[in-house]
Amino acid sequence: MDIISENMSHGGVQGVYKHVAKTTQCEMTFAVFMPPSKKTPAPLLWYLSGLTCNHSNVMEKGGYRRLAAELGIAIVCPDTSPRGESVPDEKDNWQFGSGAGFYLDATELPFSVNYNMSSYILDELTELIDDKFDVDMNRQGIFGHSMGGHGALTMALKNPKRFRSCSAFAPISQPTTADWSMPAFQKYLGQKSDEWRKYDAVSLIEDGNFFPKLFVDQGEADSFLEEGLRPWLLVEACEKAGIEIELRMHKNYDHSYFFISTFMEDHLRWHFSHL
Amino acid sequence: MDIISENMSHGGVQGVYKHVAKTTQCEMTFAVFMPPSKKTPAPLLWYLSGLTCNHSNVMEKGGYRRLAAELGIAIVCPDTSPRGESVPDEKDNWQFGSGAGFYLDATELPFSVNYNMSSYILDELTELIDDKFDVDMNRQGIFGHSMGGHGALTMALKNPKRFRSCSAFAPISQPTTADWSMPAFQKYLGQKSDEWRKYDAVSLIEDGNFFPKLFVDQGEADSFLEEGLRPWLLVEACEKAGIEIELRMHKNYDHSYFFISTFMEDHLRWHFSHL
Repeated sequence: MDIISENMSHGGVQGVYKHVAKTTQCEMTFAVFMPPSKKTPAPLLWYLSGLTCNHSNVMEKGGYRRLAAELGIAIVCPDTSPRGESVPDEKDNWQFGSGAGFYLDATELPFSVNYNMSSYILDELTELIDDKFDVDMNRQGIFGHSMGGHGALTMALKNPKRFRSCSAFAPISQPTTADWSMPAFQKYLGQKSDEWRKYDAVSLIEDGNFFPKLFVDQGEADSFLEEGLRPWLLVEACEKAGIEIELRMHKNYDHSYFFISTFMEDHLRWHFSHL
Repeated sequence: MDIISENMSHGGVQGVYKHVAKTTQCEMTFAVFMPPSKKTPAPLLWYLSGLTCNHSNVMEKGGYRRLAAELGIAIVCPDTSPRGESVPDEKDNWQFGSGAGFYLDATELPFSVNYNMSSYILDELTELIDDKFDVDMNRQGIFGHSMGGHGALTMALKNPKRFRSCSAFAPISQPTTADWSMPAFQKYLGQKSDEWRKYDAVSLIEDGNFFPKLFVDQGEADSFLEEGLRPWLLVEACEKAGIEIELRMHKNYDHSYFFISTFMEDHLRWHFSHL
């Protein structure tokens, strides 16, 4: 692991690091904020970003450091896809390839060589973080935005013992039926099959996966709400399955980091109370 | 004035606007954060950015919105220079031209046509803000970072009745003697003369300009500290002149927005207490 940068901030250290990853067969960049040292290792909160983003968007615009430092939470922000000249991509398509890994393990060539963001985050990056940072791997939470909200929900639903808390900003609730994600699923996973359901929060709940409590914020002025995000599908699935969910709808808020940063501190406090 | 974007954030509105400016003979972009409406117009705090920046850096990375919304402060973030194809520039020089207006009115051709950031901010943009936003022009403060700290200090020292408060992050204290700013001063203002002293905080204080109280934060790990910033020169001048100044030195902090955002809220509270 190489240090790209480390900056003192709010009494902690905001770092950016890179390493060559086996699961994605390329160099990966990620950010970690370590709060000021305390006597015990910090709980670890994973933030997964949305389409077009990399590790830096939430690091710069998310506004998590003040309260994360105060509460003593470490925050890791992975990239959203493999990247590099050797990685197959569609440069003009923001909903596929670079910046659009959808937090799944691709099964279809040529994408299956690199696009394994599920294994990368849940296994390889996890091991690296455990090895290099003073964090408590028994106290992990996960959250994210949009495609990263989808990533957080699906990873938590499949790993309820690992993650103690899960929340999301404007998550893609059912990517297997949304126009903006179906083409990517088809390229990564082939024709629609049970494989798709492993990476779809609503389907996972329907198939019996359980997480005790979810917390979702959604802007009412979000232009992706009706077609892409549809949090009501998530609420419906949760209610049927007995999963407790709090969905807050926010008038006039959109899909941007102006929205995310407004409610970031509510999410940090919520995670902290469960970690 | 045209709206480029307006996003709801922390209960207020973060806007970005553009207009054709007479003083700089080009289209200028600026950002305004309006806090949630109260019964009385909001006090107005000017934030001037540093070299290479435009209106967006502090808007994205400064972390001012949470507390500005809570306190009810409007924040305006101008650009740092004129820009455009017709504006003379040195594209490979980050210390002159675009992004490096130094908050002065140039006297030398061809720069004097466009590089009039002092008049632009103090007169033209001020009138526009007064006209278009519900702010209290009797309650104005000013702060900034690096070159923008220089801008804030010099504008406050020359307009102590207009600005009720002035603070700075890592300001350029004496640009007329710093290697990184002297070449720009020469191109904008000609050979060294009394004209230079109008845009230099230390010189202005030596020449009898007075501001009751200044507040400065500086990182000790700031790579520009010794050569470019030198806050001790400002402290020395203030002490001689009977100007109250609080300079806080912060171990391990650098020149970045990771530093600025850490202490942003202290500055907002400080300004609010004087507005």
